[in-house]
Amino acid sequence: MAVGQCDFPAMPDITGIRLGTACAGIKQTVKDDILVIAMAEHATCAAVFTQNAFCAAPVHVAKANLPHAPRWLLVNSGNANAGTGEQGMQDALLSCAELAAVVGADANQVLPFSTGVIGMPLPIKKITTALPDAVKNLSEANWDKAARAIMTTDTFPKGVTKVITIAGQRITINGIAKGAGMIQPNMATLLSFIATDAKISQSLLQNCLAQAVEQSFNRITVDGDTSTNDACVLMASDCSAAPEITEDSEHYPVFADAVMTVCKQLAETIIRDGEGATKLMRIVVKEALTDEEAVRVAKTIAHSPLVKTAFFASDPNWGRILAAVGRSGVENMVLEDVRIYLDDVCIVRNGGRDLDYTEEAGQQVMNNEEISVTVILGRGNASQEVLTCDFSYDYVKINAEYRT
Amino acid sequence: MAVGQCDFPAMPDITGIRLGTACAGIKQTVKDDILVIAMAEHATCAAVFTQNAFCAAPVHVAKANLPHAPRWLLVNSGNANAGTGEQGMQDALLSCAELAAVVGADANQVLPFSTGVIGMPLPIKKITTALPDAVKNLSEANWDKAARAIMTTDTFPKGVTKVITIAGQRITINGIAKGAGMIQPNMATLLSFIATDAKISQSLLQNCLAQAVEQSFNRITVDGDTSTNDACVLMASDCSAAPEITEDSEHYPVFADAVMTVCKQLAETIIRDGEGATKLMRIVVKEALTDEEAVRVAKTIAHSPLVKTAFFASDPNWGRILAAVGRSGVENMVLEDVRIYLDDVCIVRNGGRDLDYTEEAGQQVMNNEEISVTVILGRGNASQEVLTCDFSYDYVKINAEYRT
Repeated sequence: MAVGQCDFPAMPDITGIRLGTACAGIKQTVKDDILVIAMAEHATCAAVFTQNAFCAAPVHVAKANLPHAPRWLLVNSGNANAGTGEQGMQDALLSCAELAAVVGADANQVLPFSTGVIGMPLPIKKITTALPDAVKNLSEANWDKAARAIMTTDTFPKGVTKVITIAGQRITINGIAKGAGMIQPNMATLLSFIATDAKISQSLLQNCLAQAVEQSFNRITVDGDTSTNDACVLMASDCSAAPEITEDSEHYPVFADAVMTVCKQLAETIIRDGEGATKLMRIVVKEALTDEEAVRVAKTIAHSPLVKTAFFASDPNWGRILAAVGRSGVENMVLEDVRIYLDDVCIVRNGGRDLDYTEEAGQQVMNNEEISVTVILGRGNASQEVLTCDFSYDYVKINAEYRT
Repeated sequence: MAVGQCDFPAMPDITGIRLGTACAGIKQTVKDDILVIAMAEHATCAAVFTQNAFCAAPVHVAKANLPHAPRWLLVNSGNANAGTGEQGMQDALLSCAELAAVVGADANQVLPFSTGVIGMPLPIKKITTALPDAVKNLSEANWDKAARAIMTTDTFPKGVTKVITIAGQRITINGIAKGAGMIQPNMATLLSFIATDAKISQSLLQNCLAQAVEQSFNRITVDGDTSTNDACVLMASDCSAAPEITEDSEHYPVFADAVMTVCKQLAETIIRDGEGATKLMRIVVKEALTDEEAVRVAKTIAHSPLVKTAFFASDPNWGRILAAVGRSGVENMVLEDVRIYLDDVCIVRNGGRDLDYTEEAGQQVMNNEEISVTVILGRGNASQEVLTCDFSYDYVKINAEYRT
């Protein structure tokens, strides 16, 4: 089940970025579950990671290796290697060492990533056995296979591609992502890999990624549960004919905007595939005092089980939205100043139901698959948007039966 | 559906507290939906209310009337009179004036309370028409009828009674409550009325109630949604033969402890009747730096849809508990210091799964209807407990179909 059309796009190659997949049989044996990404010699690589205090072993290792000019990513699905203690750290380090041995690199040039069930030992033997196969399959044409290899409860592979022209030369940006549950990313989503053939320094690439993630992956939520394994990586292969993108150049805003667009579109695909989702909700909060306040109100609505079940039922039960805004913890809010809209239908004004509101108008909006909820606080000039999905029987079913 | 045995107890009369119910037909015509409570002449009355910024019209009126030595409570179920703007305020005031006229009191001696759907105009005509009937039925023997009249999505009436002896004289405390969804009370639950025949000043009664509520109703959550209408009232009729309870007397701790017990037991009945609940979960956080930190960790677990659906499935998926603790926002937490137990089965120790843990032992605990989750943070000496319930298909069903 997913909201809207979610076809995987035709992804062009990124020169200097090769992807190889293999089946290690970690949780099942019918799909590839290992992904290796190889970067060209002069590539730069930026990454952001979960802020969950109990982040997984591979997150610790990837953070430590990031300053060592990484050339290889090693990703597995089906097991998160989180809550696995000292053994988990050893397994994450060993997986890097094994890949390094196969390809003739240093172990600290490998960034490891894991996604799947928490608290089970990583089947390291299965992974190392499958590694040579993944390396043998390395190809610039494998974006679709890569997107499939990292899926867990996802119902479709997620990819976005974008081309910009700088100084008359094409730069391509490809991104893939996975994630459907335990989604309230805090710095990055569980997991996204984005690559470009641009030439750009590591420090500028890191700034660019951090800004893009803040306005994209950090503005979505399925269930409010921040994962232990979230990570988002941006690789730049330095293989385009375009000039280097520097901080002061006119080209940086164009590039940064394109990265932002790719991140926002990838984030949206994750919500479209939210566990059990039947509706996509854009929660827009305007006229807040600060961005933080706007996000706080938007996330309170986005996390309310009562709001989410009402949307599942296509029920314009706006009282639940009003109650969520009221409990969001914003001080000195004045109910009389607040307006709330479902798409362009005003539901709340002057402290109560808008005089022109009709159940029919509300019902008509709620019958749509994609709905915006706009809350105008009447306090300031800050605006923020958060994407979420509804709460259905299937969310309960998927998460009640996850380990069976 | 409810967790455990929830029979309504035999509630003794409280001399000086009379209760009368009637059917106004607000949402349905098969049950009483109006409750009037009359207090004896020298009674004192304390109350705490929701901290939702958009509190309902009756909450505004009840707060304003509380200092005027209230003698009457007027409660309706089936309509919350919240999000109803200026008309809602007029309706709340009018309902007080109408009751005052029937009984020959001042309108500001009436505290109004409403519970039910948000955003619909209060059917004031139906209520005022039914008032004389409720007044005619006033009796000290009506606790059971009163508990039923205030129910909405509750599946059983909720009552607790307790007798203490002070200076050789009996003091009785009776409490009733309602609430099953939109439950994360912040100051009080949606709605609870407690009465005693003790003699105690209003200011001391208010302190006593505030302290009891903080450790009972403010420590439960069904869905994290704080209602617009929460209120908890404690009435003392001054009709017992026991001496006045003063702040410095040896009797105050005995009385306060009894009120606390009544509040805790009432709060627990609300969780047992949580919408769609099949399990009662006691989340205990120990060795936190502060009470606030302990509550924060406990509520993060209690609100996690992933934890709640795993409990619904009786799945000892402790990785989700670990992830929730990790994202709770407590700074400088050390995973290696944290221990987590399901009842007395240790699941997490030294940063990973406890070496002695077996799926069988975890599964055995999860098969119970009542389960404690104990998280030991290893940071300090503060402990707090939060009660919650699981997240089932029926929660979605009840809230998706609430207005149909």
